[in-house]
Amino acid sequence: MKIIKTIKEMQAWSRHQVKIGKSIGFVPTMGALHAGHKSLLERARLENDIVVSSIYINPTQFGSQEDLARYPQTFEADRQLCEAAGVDCVFAPENVYESDSQTWVVVEKLQQMLEGKSRPGHFNGVATVVTKLFNIVHPTRAYFGRKDAQQLVVIKTMVKELNMDLDIIPCDTVREADGLAMSSRNRFLSPTERQQALCIYRALTYCRQQVENGERNASKLVEGMHRILTIDIDYVVIVDAQCLVPIAILKDDVLVAIAVKVGSVRLIDNINFTGLS
Amino acid sequence: MKIIKTIKEMQAWSRHQVKIGKSIGFVPTMGALHAGHKSLLERARLENDIVVSSIYINPTQFGSQEDLARYPQTFEADRQLCEAAGVDCVFAPENVYESDSQTWVVVEKLQQMLEGKSRPGHFNGVATVVTKLFNIVHPTRAYFGRKDAQQLVVIKTMVKELNMDLDIIPCDTVREADGLAMSSRNRFLSPTERQQALCIYRALTYCRQQVENGERNASKLVEGMHRILTIDIDYVVIVDAQCLVPIAILKDDVLVAIAVKVGSVRLIDNINFTGLS
Repeated sequence: MKIIKTIKEMQAWSRHQVKIGKSIGFVPTMGALHAGHKSLLERARLENDIVVSSIYINPTQFGSQEDLARYPQTFEADRQLCEAAGVDCVFAPENVYESDSQTWVVVEKLQQMLEGKSRPGHFNGVATVVTKLFNIVHPTRAYFGRKDAQQLVVIKTMVKELNMDLDIIPCDTVREADGLAMSSRNRFLSPTERQQALCIYRALTYCRQQVENGERNASKLVEGMHRILTIDIDYVVIVDAQCLVPIAILKDDVLVAIAVKVGSVRLIDNINFTGLS
Repeated sequence: MKIIKTIKEMQAWSRHQVKIGKSIGFVPTMGALHAGHKSLLERARLENDIVVSSIYINPTQFGSQEDLARYPQTFEADRQLCEAAGVDCVFAPENVYESDSQTWVVVEKLQQMLEGKSRPGHFNGVATVVTKLFNIVHPTRAYFGRKDAQQLVVIKTMVKELNMDLDIIPCDTVREADGLAMSSRNRFLSPTERQQALCIYRALTYCRQQVENGERNASKLVEGMHRILTIDIDYVVIVDAQCLVPIAILKDDVLVAIAVKVGSVRLIDNINFTGLS
């Protein structure tokens, strides 16, 4: 497995792969890899000639109050996980930004919804770094987890509207045996908090069951989830899956998204429904 | 010469050229082609296996008060000029935007300078459409005239900061025999206005001579140009060639830029100096 540290070398390597007709599957990460990332890498391995993963903690997607400094750095474990998953090349740059960088990719409306309210500027940072990584890695397909549902919608919209020539492949959320969604932040939960966090999945499971039983009233579902969530809630919303605008009645494609704080750890999770009538 | 009208077909065609190892030279235009465009196409022809030109009047770079509706449409003449210049493929889409498009490429500081003051939003439109066209055409090299000096700086900055994998090739302004810079807007000048417009080049020539004679004081040079410009001046500025911030003393790389109105026609022109001491 190749490890590349500079933009120039990565771009030249990828450009060469494209020229010799190889398809490139790309999994961008911020490291601290877990079973969720592993599932993305494995899917990329199945579907492409070459698999590239990037490990880069992107400073521009952290707000001033956020935990950039304490974001876990576990390069050696990440490298081993990549190697085991059959990755061909890890792109691990120290920095991908020019000094005084002033160019941003902005997905105007979507970046303001849900997470955007708690994390202003976050999705400008995400859209910009993902654009840069796509331009460096030249992927045929890029893989993103559904756990970061809004990130996925922002990136799909950006790719479509800027005519980026690749496919975005959404991959299902991987969960612990008890239902907690895999996240690099889970390691910061104390044993008690780890138990408390389980109500997130209980609330989402409740919602799924209610919808399967025919409930379509968003307020009733949100109310029910609020009763189950015995932790500090940031938001519990039911929105249109494309534009992320809250809906009153569940119909067609719908996202149910939760953001909470357990102790000092902010967690998000979601489920989605497609083709509801 | 191939004429392609859809994004999908253009993207597939270009992707194929890249895969079979061809270099692509790209000249994006809004049509109304003149000798300036011709020089870009000829340079692209010399330096690449394949030459692609786009003809698309980009609505997002026109302000609400601007002349989108009266922008000249001369497709048949444009087609002939492209054919004569050895273009392989003209990309002539009817529309490249998704409805309710919300994704923008923003070059924050540069877009506010010079033209940005008179044309708010203009460079967001330019940066966004050029990004889209690059993603559709996959150029190895893209050619831009120095006449649109700020556009060139905006695009070079965007390409560098977003790691777009191509070279931007600046090409010298082409002028009429009497010095007027080629522009699709020149056709709107009455014979009298056409004569009046010559003072732009006279002012720039004066500036060049003064600088060659050793003058480095920006105010004095601007004052001198003001005296020569006997038309409605929007701005006459001497700025740093990279960041477009006004300078007091000419040094290193410098742009001298003029924007005027002759009757109802807004014209811009500029000269640049490199390595001044």
